[in-house]
Amino acid sequence: MKSVQWHDTHITILNQQALPHKTEYLELKNIKDVWDAIVTLKVRGAPAIGMTAAYGLALAAKSYETNDLAQFHAELKRDRDYLASSRPTAVNLFWALDRLMKSVAQAKSVNEAKTTLIHEAICIQVEDEDVCRRIGEHALSLFQDGDRIMTICNAGAIATARYGTALAPFHLAKEKGMTLHAYACETRPVLQGARLTAWELSQAGVDVTLITDNMAAQTMKAKHISAVIVGADRIAANGDTANKIGTFGLAILAKAFRIPFYVAAPLSTIDLQTKTGDDIPIEERAKEEVTHIGGVRIAPDVNVYNPAFDVTPHELITGIITEKGIIFGDYATKLPTLFEEVFA
Amino acid sequence: MKSVQWHDTHITILNQQALPHKTEYLELKNIKDVWDAIVTLKVRGAPAIGMTAAYGLALAAKSYETNDLAQFHAELKRDRDYLASSRPTAVNLFWALDRLMKSVAQAKSVNEAKTTLIHEAICIQVEDEDVCRRIGEHALSLFQDGDRIMTICNAGAIATARYGTALAPFHLAKEKGMTLHAYACETRPVLQGARLTAWELSQAGVDVTLITDNMAAQTMKAKHISAVIVGADRIAANGDTANKIGTFGLAILAKAFRIPFYVAAPLSTIDLQTKTGDDIPIEERAKEEVTHIGGVRIAPDVNVYNPAFDVTPHELITGIITEKGIIFGDYATKLPTLFEEVFA
Repeated sequence: MKSVQWHDTHITILNQQALPHKTEYLELKNIKDVWDAIVTLKVRGAPAIGMTAAYGLALAAKSYETNDLAQFHAELKRDRDYLASSRPTAVNLFWALDRLMKSVAQAKSVNEAKTTLIHEAICIQVEDEDVCRRIGEHALSLFQDGDRIMTICNAGAIATARYGTALAPFHLAKEKGMTLHAYACETRPVLQGARLTAWELSQAGVDVTLITDNMAAQTMKAKHISAVIVGADRIAANGDTANKIGTFGLAILAKAFRIPFYVAAPLSTIDLQTKTGDDIPIEERAKEEVTHIGGVRIAPDVNVYNPAFDVTPHELITGIITEKGIIFGDYATKLPTLFEEVFA
Repeated sequence: MKSVQWHDTHITILNQQALPHKTEYLELKNIKDVWDAIVTLKVRGAPAIGMTAAYGLALAAKSYETNDLAQFHAELKRDRDYLASSRPTAVNLFWALDRLMKSVAQAKSVNEAKTTLIHEAICIQVEDEDVCRRIGEHALSLFQDGDRIMTICNAGAIATARYGTALAPFHLAKEKGMTLHAYACETRPVLQGARLTAWELSQAGVDVTLITDNMAAQTMKAKHISAVIVGADRIAANGDTANKIGTFGLAILAKAFRIPFYVAAPLSTIDLQTKTGDDIPIEERAKEEVTHIGGVRIAPDVNVYNPAFDVTPHELITGIITEKGIIFGDYATKLPTLFEEVFA
């Protein structure tokens, strides 16, 4: 069962908030359900958010009663903006929604537009699986049998159509009979590493060791970590990368230990309109994510700073792994060429 | 009420595992109670562990039935070794126990020895309050009104006789009407920062902001952190410092951001017999500390690496703040002089 799936009258998603306790699928029946599922992190991971939002827009459009194309486009724009407001940092969300908007710009009828939106959303998901496999193949070329690789958050199969981005090499290595040892940072406050990555990789038979986030330095030293690989929520034109909070710190540690630090992400994560990391808005979330775990209070009611993401400056990134290959440094020059080739 | 207190027939301790939910005091009535309280982290913090173990040894000795001095010393040695086995990393534990052993080496009778042990244990606690105040005064000389200072774990009043070590400057600043802003890393897995430091500082009226451990890099950058100050469980002769897991990572981040990184600790934490950090045993604790929070499972049953401490190499430490003053660098030469002056 896929983590996101289109069913014509609704969308089903794997409820990532219920993991690892319960493997539960939720039906999203309207655009409000979709928006809520994204905001409450029931669906998460930049590519999965993009897919879900795309299906959400197609589902919303399906219910419009008008036959007037101008009216249709006005309603579509309203719903696009509503879904785009669900989370500010991940660019795949905007990329997927805008791809759908563009797909119906020339539509000749409302019916054609409705069908096109569904088709385009399905295409995004189908392509994502292929993209993730390619990312995984490129990433795997960097690693050797027995390597010990650290990751944070969950840039995994459940965050994408399949395989994941940062976790793709672990899944592909397993398919090929090669051994990679994963070290998963638990990723407070929402614990995506503990709840999702540890679960996903152990389900897939990958050797995975869980650590708390503050054990990263000691683990790099004591366990001779070979490399760090992470996903991305947005990559700016100069290579600066927004990803789950904690990524920036891991990149600094990796440099101190002279360990390569890789970002694995699809082209849809690269936003050439965003010049540098300073232009990426960093979502701050509710203090209760930090002061409570599983509904239980773990801290007194004090001030909390809860940024959901941080930006890793490009100079700390050894390579950016995309479906089109790996770029090592000089991102400002090289990132645009990935797009030229695609559209050539 | 003090966090550790001698009552002649028993010892009371503040149950640090029940905080911040409940302010609960426990009676320790025999040596087994004392050992358990240390192992289960009901009492924690290097100086508080030392005080509790010292009282525990005095309490145990009080119950010996022999009047034979040789027999008394044999039983005392057995109980000293039992208490010393409770935790391997903090050197104050061994320091306090050995100070008690030495205090009765020349005792002329069992009764005299029993009284001396109680006296010596009380002295350790009384001296610790004075030591912590001096550490706080020295630390405060490094900071300015309005500084934003990050810390990890709880090197606070409840981990010592009073004031704490790393937290002493916050308490003293408050007494003097000076404002220091504390940023407390929550300190997984046991959450001493969230449960204890956030609680202790907010109780004292200090402005404290709680972050998860993986937010340290982003917080240093976004909040313009002025300095990092931490406690210590053991300082080797060359300045390498064992402290709560996560300290090493903070020191690397501080260096990357060119922020001074200070260790605050009493002389009893300095172990000149330990040549370097490589000689400090690092306690590994049960995997359930990572996979469960408050008894609730948060991760699947996978491999866990759970070191309770890490070692920060001396070259990452800007200064070591003791009751005798602050040492900046060249620790191998300067640390021994602290002891020469004391015993001169």
